[in-house]
Amino acid sequence: MLDGYIDAVRRARPLVHCMANYVTAGDCANALLAAGASPVMADAPEEVEEITAHCRSLVLNLGTLSERRLTAMVLAARHSGALGHPVVLDPVGVGASAFRRDAARLLLSTVKPTVIRGNLSEIMALSGEKTMAGGVDAEDQEESPARRKRLAEELARRTGSVVVLTGEADVVTDGNRTGVIQNGHAMMGLVTGTGCILSALIGAFLAADSACPLEAAAAAAGALGVCGERAYERAAHAGRGSGSYRMALMDELSLMKENIMGGVRLVSE
Amino acid sequence: MLDGYIDAVRRARPLVHCMANYVTAGDCANALLAAGASPVMADAPEEVEEITAHCRSLVLNLGTLSERRLTAMVLAARHSGALGHPVVLDPVGVGASAFRRDAARLLLSTVKPTVIRGNLSEIMALSGEKTMAGGVDAEDQEESPARRKRLAEELARRTGSVVVLTGEADVVTDGNRTGVIQNGHAMMGLVTGTGCILSALIGAFLAADSACPLEAAAAAAGALGVCGERAYERAAHAGRGSGSYRMALMDELSLMKENIMGGVRLVSE
Amino acid sequence: MLDGYIDAVRRARPLVHCMANYVTAGDCANALLAAGASPVMADAPEEVEEITAHCRSLVLNLGTLSERRLTAMVLAARHSGALGHPVVLDPVGVGASAFRRDAARLLLSTVKPTVIRGNLSEIMALSGEKTMAGGVDAEDQEESPARRKRLAEELARRTGSVVVLTGEADVVTDGNRTGVIQNGHAMMGLVTGTGCILSALIGAFLAADSACPLEAAAAAAGALGVCGERAYERAAHAGRGSGSYRMALMDELSLMKENIMGGVRLVSE
Repeated sequence: MLDGYIDAVRRARPLVHCMANYVTAGDCANALLAAGASPVMADAPEEVEEITAHCRSLVLNLGTLSERRLTAMVLAARHSGALGHPVVLDPVGVGASAFRRDAARLLLSTVKPTVIRGNLSEIMALSGEKTMAGGVDAEDQEESPARRKRLAEELARRTGSVVVLTGEADVVTDGNRTGVIQNGHAMMGLVTGTGCILSALIGAFLAADSACPLEAAAAAAGALGVCGERAYERAAHAGRGSGSYRMALMDELSLMKENIMGGVRLVSE
Repeated sequence: MLDGYIDAVRRARPLVHCMANYVTAGDCANALLAAGASPVMADAPEEVEEITAHCRSLVLNLGTLSERRLTAMVLAARHSGALGHPVVLDPVGVGASAFRRDAARLLLSTVKPTVIRGNLSEIMALSGEKTMAGGVDAEDQEESPARRKRLAEELARRTGSVVVLTGEADVVTDGNRTGVIQNGHAMMGLVTGTGCILSALIGAFLAADSACPLEAAAAAAGALGVCGERAYERAAHAGRGSGSYRMALMDELSLMKENIMGGVRLVSE
Repeated sequence: MLDGYIDAVRRARPLVHCMANYVTAGDCANALLAAGASPVMADAPEEVEEITAHCRSLVLNLGTLSERRLTAMVLAARHSGALGHPVVLDPVGVGASAFRRDAARLLLSTVKPTVIRGNLSEIMALSGEKTMAGGVDAEDQEESPARRKRLAEELARRTGSVVVLTGEADVVTDGNRTGVIQNGHAMMGLVTGTGCILSALIGAFLAADSACPLEAAAAAAGALGVCGERAYERAAHAGRGSGSYRMALMDELSLMKENIMGGVRLVSE
C-alpha cells in the first residue's frame, strides 16, 4: 500500500514550494534533493503566487514566523488551493504563542491542508487543548497511545485534513482510517528539523502522487523512520554523535530505494 | 568549580530562547540539542515576549541584524529582564557598522546582560575602542594577553556583566575575578558559528543553573574548548578538513559528559 | 593561467560581503572560510554601505529574495560600484517570477557586475528567453553546447560582465574569449547551494586578485569542480550519500592547495 512513492518522486522530480523557517531551510532543501524532488524556497509576498503555480505542492512551516512570511503564506495557500495543489501545514511551535495560534487559524480558514504534520504539543494546540510549553523540538509529553490516536482523529475530522502526529510512534489518520507507524530512532530528537524534513517529504510524496494523501503521508513517515533507523547503524563509527547522525540521515534519504519500505512497521487500527 | 553544568543541562532540558542570525541558527539549534537543552528560535516582535516567558534564558545574537529583529530583541530583552531570566548578548560584528553599535547600545540600555560574549574586535568596539574592520569570524588582532584581560575586565565593570572574550585563549571575568581558559583548537576558526554556539551554550548553562554566571560562562567556554580539541582528533580520518571538523565538533558536544571538564585548563588570575 | 588564486586568497584572507539567501548562507560562509577568505553576511539597508566599504568584494544572491533585501542590495551594489569593488551577481531562480526578473534588471541597471554566475535557466531568463520553470537546483535543460556557449557570450557582450554558465560543463566567457571547464561531479546537483558556493568563491578569488575577472571566475569554477570530483572519492566510505558528499566537498575546499589546479580541464574555444 505504501509502495511506489519513492520511485515516483525520483521519476517525476517534482518541484515543491517549501516555505521553510530559516533554522532548517537548508536541511529541508537537502532532504528534498536527496529524495529526488526539487525545492523552491521563496517566501516574498510579491512572488509566492507565481512561484507556487510552477510547483506541484506547497509546504507551510510556521517556524521563525514573521508577519511578512505569514502574509506570503496566506497568498500562496489561497492560490495553491485554487489550483488544487496538495498543501502541507507544519504548525511549528503553535502552542508557544498567540501569534502562531492565530496564524494557524488564519491558514486553516484560507485553505484546507491536505496534510497537517505536528508533534503532540502542536496537535494539542491546534485542537484547542492546553499544552505545557515545550521547545519546538520537544519530546512528546506523556500521553497514552489511545489519547494520541483520539486527538489526531478528532483534528482530522474537524479539519478534513490527514493528520500526522509524530513521536515515538507516528499516528497517521484521515479521521476514519488510522495507522500507527513504529519506526524511527530516538536520535532523531537530537537533530533539529527532522519534523520539518518529514513535512517537506510529505510534500514531495504528494507532489508525485496525490491520489491518496493518507497513504502518501504514511509512506513518507515510514520512509523517514526507516532511514532514521539505518542512520543509527551508519553513525556507529563516530560513537553515534548527533553531528554524524544528522549526516547519516541525509545519506540514507539520498540512497533510499523502494525496498526500504519493507522495513516499515505499520499497524492499522 | 566548573563541574555540574553538563549534567544539570541534561537533567533540566531547559528551554533556551535563541534569537540567532540566519547564517548559524541551525548550528546553534543543533548545539543546544546536543548539549541537552531545547532551543526556541522565535524573532517576531508579535510573539517574543510570550515565547521568552516560557523559556529559562535568552540569547541575543546581532548577526544578520535587521530593524525588525532589533525591535523584537528589545521587547524580549526587557521582558526577560523583568522576569529575572539570564540574558546573553553576542555582539556579532558590532565594530562593523554604526547600526550594530547603536543596536548594542540600545540593548545594553534595555537590559543588563548576564554575560557578554565576543571576540577581541567586538569587545573593543563595545569598549569604544577603534578596531580594524575584520570579518565576523575574524581572528583576533594581535594584542598582548594583559591588554585583552584589561579590556574584558573594564567592560565587565562598566556593564555589570560577565564578559567572555574569546580567542586563542578565552578571558572570562566579572571585573573582579578573572580566569583564562586555554582550550580549543585553531580549526574552530575555520567553521562559521563557533562563537554563536558558545553564546548559545552559555545560555543553556545559565538556564540550568544561574547562581554563578562567572562559573557558568567559564564552564561553557571550557566545555566547548575541550570538545574542539577532541573534534580535531576525531576528524583525523578525513585529513581534518573543515567539513568533517564541524561535524566532529557537534558529535563531541552530543557525547560530552561531566568527566570532560577534567580537560579544562583554567588559569585564575 | 588559472594558478595563484588559491594561494592569493589564503594569503590575503579578504573580507567578502556575501548577501546570501537564508537557505545556503551557512554553507557559503563555511566555504569562504574553507577557502581562506572571511565572510560578512549583512543585509540590512541601514548598514550595507558601511559594511561593503570594509570588504574587498560583494556577492549578490537572489535566493529567498525580499523587498527589504533587494533595497539593501541596491544600496550595496551602488556603493560597491562607486568604490570599484568587484561585484558578483547570482540570479537564483530569476526565471521563476516577475519579482526576481525585475530585481535582476534593477541590479543590472545599478551596477555592472564583474561576474554573473547562473545555471542555464537563469542565464536564459536574464537573456529574455523563455524557460521551462525549474527548481533553483534544477538540472540543465537539454541544450547543445554550442547554444549554451552562444547564450553566455551574448549575455556577456550585452552586460559587459564575465558570465559563468554552470552545468555539466561550465562556460566562462567575457564575450570575446570563452573557456569551457569540464570538471565537477553529478553529485553536486544533490546538494543545495553548490551554485551559491561557486558565486561566493568567485567573490573571494576576485577579492584577492581582480586584475583579470575572466581568469578568476574560471579558476574558481575549476577549483570547485576539482574539489567536487575529489569529494566523490572521499565520500565512498558512506556509499556516496548526499550528506557525506556535502561534508566531503567542504573538506576538499578547506584542504585545497594550488596543485589541485593541475586537475582543471579547461578547453579554450
